[in-house]
Amino acid sequence: MTKYSIGIDYGTLSGRAVLVNVHTGEEVDSKVYDYPHQVMDEHLPSGRELGHDWALQHPQDYLDVLSNTIPRLLNDNNINPNDVIGVGVDFTACTVMPVMADGTPLCFVERYKDRPHAYVKLWKHHAAQDLANELNRIAEESNEKWLPRYGGKISSEWLFPKLWQILKEDPEVYEGMDKFIEATDWITWQLTGVETRNSCTAGYKAIWHKKDGYPDKSFFKSLDYRLENVIDDKLSRDIVPLGQKAGEMTAFASKLTGLNIGTAVSVANVDAHVTVPAVKIYGPGKMLAIIGTSTCHVLLGEEEIEGPGMCGVVEDGIIPGYFGYEAGQSCVGDSFAWFVDNCVPEDYFKDAEKDKKAIHQYLSEKAENLKVGESGLIALDWWNGNRSVLVDVDLTGVILGMDIQTSPEEIYRALIESTAYGTRVIVENFRESGVPVDEFYASGGISQKNPFMMQVYADVLNMPIHIAGSEHGPALGAAIFGAVAAGKDKGGYDSVVEASKVMGKLKDVVYIPNEENVEIYNKLYNEYKKLHDYFGRGENNVMKTLKEIKKGVVKEELSLGGVE
Amino acid sequence: MTKYSIGIDYGTLSGRAVLVNVHTGEEVDSKVYDYPHQVMDEHLPSGRELGHDWALQHPQDYLDVLSNTIPRLLNDNNINPNDVIGVGVDFTACTVMPVMADGTPLCFVERYKDRPHAYVKLWKHHAAQDLANELNRIAEESNEKWLPRYGGKISSEWLFPKLWQILKEDPEVYEGMDKFIEATDWITWQLTGVETRNSCTAGYKAIWHKKDGYPDKSFFKSLDYRLENVIDDKLSRDIVPLGQKAGEMTAFASKLTGLNIGTAVSVANVDAHVTVPAVKIYGPGKMLAIIGTSTCHVLLGEEEIEGPGMCGVVEDGIIPGYFGYEAGQSCVGDSFAWFVDNCVPEDYFKDAEKDKKAIHQYLSEKAENLKVGESGLIALDWWNGNRSVLVDVDLTGVILGMDIQTSPEEIYRALIESTAYGTRVIVENFRESGVPVDEFYASGGISQKNPFMMQVYADVLNMPIHIAGSEHGPALGAAIFGAVAAGKDKGGYDSVVEASKVMGKLKDVVYIPNEENVEIYNKLYNEYKKLHDYFGRGENNVMKTLKEIKKGVVKEELSLGGVE
Repeated sequence: MTKYSIGIDYGTLSGRAVLVNVHTGEEVDSKVYDYPHQVMDEHLPSGRELGHDWALQHPQDYLDVLSNTIPRLLNDNNINPNDVIGVGVDFTACTVMPVMADGTPLCFVERYKDRPHAYVKLWKHHAAQDLANELNRIAEESNEKWLPRYGGKISSEWLFPKLWQILKEDPEVYEGMDKFIEATDWITWQLTGVETRNSCTAGYKAIWHKKDGYPDKSFFKSLDYRLENVIDDKLSRDIVPLGQKAGEMTAFASKLTGLNIGTAVSVANVDAHVTVPAVKIYGPGKMLAIIGTSTCHVLLGEEEIEGPGMCGVVEDGIIPGYFGYEAGQSCVGDSFAWFVDNCVPEDYFKDAEKDKKAIHQYLSEKAENLKVGESGLIALDWWNGNRSVLVDVDLTGVILGMDIQTSPEEIYRALIESTAYGTRVIVENFRESGVPVDEFYASGGISQKNPFMMQVYADVLNMPIHIAGSEHGPALGAAIFGAVAAGKDKGGYDSVVEASKVMGKLKDVVYIPNEENVEIYNKLYNEYKKLHDYFGRGENNVMKTLKEIKKGVVKEELSLGGVE
Repeated sequence: MTKYSIGIDYGTLSGRAVLVNVHTGEEVDSKVYDYPHQVMDEHLPSGRELGHDWALQHPQDYLDVLSNTIPRLLNDNNINPNDVIGVGVDFTACTVMPVMADGTPLCFVERYKDRPHAYVKLWKHHAAQDLANELNRIAEESNEKWLPRYGGKISSEWLFPKLWQILKEDPEVYEGMDKFIEATDWITWQLTGVETRNSCTAGYKAIWHKKDGYPDKSFFKSLDYRLENVIDDKLSRDIVPLGQKAGEMTAFASKLTGLNIGTAVSVANVDAHVTVPAVKIYGPGKMLAIIGTSTCHVLLGEEEIEGPGMCGVVEDGIIPGYFGYEAGQSCVGDSFAWFVDNCVPEDYFKDAEKDKKAIHQYLSEKAENLKVGESGLIALDWWNGNRSVLVDVDLTGVILGMDIQTSPEEIYRALIESTAYGTRVIVENFRESGVPVDEFYASGGISQKNPFMMQVYADVLNMPIHIAGSEHGPALGAAIFGAVAAGKDKGGYDSVVEASKVMGKLKDVVYIPNEENVEIYNKLYNEYKKLHDYFGRGENNVMKTLKEIKKGVVKEELSLGGVE
């Protein structure tokens, strides 16, 4: 009898369940459900307004994903629930929420319904930046030994700045919550009735270390005396490595999903990291880049090495038994989208329409017709600051080399190239730190849709680029973990490596570096690197100066009559 | 009886005659005539193809301007030719042509009709760049004492590179010509029957100096042995200061124009320089910027001072009795036009149309609504290289500071501001060299049409900006020189200063610096200057490196199957 596993991937705007054949990795079907509340960045459901840079979600949407996708998956494909041996979940992170002791989200409780801090804080909630800055300042001053593991900086997107913001702005909510938990762990809890905390989010987002645990109480106390016991009060020291079974499906979850009570559920996972086994990566030296509006890079290593600009190194953080490394580029597709929205002339849209091509495809094709180096342009890909390796949100974008013949497709190509150079900086940084990078894998929307860009990456990195075989890499990865949670006895697998070998998938196409292009790109990369270091490492802080001037001007405007 | 003077302004695409009341400066009427041959940059009238970067004109067009404008001016306004006391001419420069001993253009002679080098080389003929480079190399090696007067570099647009190109590429034309003469001197010759050579073009474009004369024969010999006697063979050592009478109208010219035989004609002038008295500048310290696709700056001084990045200092080069200084920005309106053609999205054009506004006006208004420093952007205005003060055609444009909120109007404003910063570099360079700049005057299309940009200039320069009172500044200037050629006895003036006081005109509006803006612009200018020096003075030659890579790539392409 054919056995199946279901991977459930919680994205920013929707959740998707994919039914996967455990013996072949074939994705039989997938169902998607858009969150009714989407991202709440302006007001609560009650209409209450939110501040600048807020981004909340509603946990009911997560439950509704289960009831709106899995029953249809089973029904439409005539699947007997007996044949579904496991379920795995992955989620955006750090997406965190306050809950009661029994797992009830605080925002479900009447008295907290109208309190913004009672809701889920989505990964891109950036309103705790000031607190992140303060945390980093204190950590640096007290020489916290864990700081270098995160490239020297904790992001405002991560758990403690978000939790601290609650304490600071709404201490009642802080007091009222029994636990503060990653949404990925929470939904797994809803499926199994058992609270588990996974090693991936604990390690990458909550400063947890397999041997050293969390930062000392004294550190948290130095942030705010009320945070001294935050770990024992609101989190948990019981962290479970990825690749284990979290528990089995409860009657409640069975009713929501139509799956059997007792179905194995894996320990919760994160979207980027879970994709690694889905592209057949199960050992060191193979970097996976998940390329979308931004890029996340994940990589396995055999040792724990701390390097500048890494977003974290976590034991068992990706595949159990290895150290998982993470790095990131804050702006990839985002700058292409910015360009299309702000800088592309009308006749390009008209011509694209005439050719029945999407504007990005049209621009890519025009850009592809240029020779490497023909434009005379170089860009710095810092439209959203720089995550790796400079860890500096205040850096900004640059385009250099224009003359009055410069065309839109030349700029578009320069933007694409700049993201490839940014990736190369990350790759070289890992290598220089002693973490090998021998192969390169790409997943995410852009990797599937833009062969030209993948060829640029191959040429700039001088490595063949392998492409994810599934369009739903994270869901496939979650299904792999589901099959491992079930175990061999139930028709699944006993290790992620085994499951990845069978269920992971790559496209047949591999982008091979073109020697001539590699040679020219080496020269161009040298120029990029010179500018990168000049503007990024303090020699010329013009970008920060401009931001300060901007802040001064805008503040003045607000105080002169703005609403704020 | 009211007396009149006529100024004839020869532009790049048309010629314009303006009838001016000598007693008031009132511009009674103006007539324009488009050159039938426009700019010949692809082929001769015969169809013969021209090379890359060529730009020729047809001298018949210049004569046709006379016969197509002046008679209409007289007729339409019922002017008795007896009341027109003088005529002055100004022209683009260096716009030069080979002629026979009697003034007949070489291209009028049957055997030369199909020879590209027999035609007028327009100011923007750039095909002699290699020879200009060679000339500069040799001049620098032999430490020519005149080189610093031109900021250390002779432009490919000037006389000797153009003449050398003829000798090199078509020695028969070189041999065949009796004289090589500026078009402004030639048309004056056609009006008067007397060959004169004006001090302005001789000084700024032909390396002539009032005391030292031309460079030594040995220098010309070191370029090419056949050039040893070029001055005596093809030019003239008889240079006449501006402000004098060149001669009187001949029967031939009277027939063309309808003016009286014997009407005074002034020594020929150049469009930028002739505008100085038209805006009531008749003494030192007042910089005039003629702002269009590029900007030309002219300034009077009491001493001869050599400074880096000046385009020349010439005694009697602007107003007799003063040293005339010139500087330039290669790219002003050009980069705004590039931006509108390549970077402005469709909805901006639609909204502009809805508001019935030209796109530049629409963008300017949106840019004007931003506060100084609000965009966080800074640009380097080098889309056409940098003329003053870096004298480097290989520099290219930069935009820095983008994030994904950056809007088109923010970039547009940054481009405008970058040209103001570029002007400030020039102003400060003059001051540092010891040439005072106390007031700032603007003429040219942009000065008339874009009040926002003029306010930016006032704020960046921290000087009030006075605006030319006439839309036809050069023609008014030429009319002033015409009135001076006639002299007081004939109802005109005996000096340019006297004439300028009466006939020169400024708009009532003066753009006054806004103190708050000045303060922020001082900070922004510091950042501009740091980038200017970093990229412009050799610390990071990325722009040149990119151009070299580009050249290599494009050359390769050509040799692999290109046409050339």
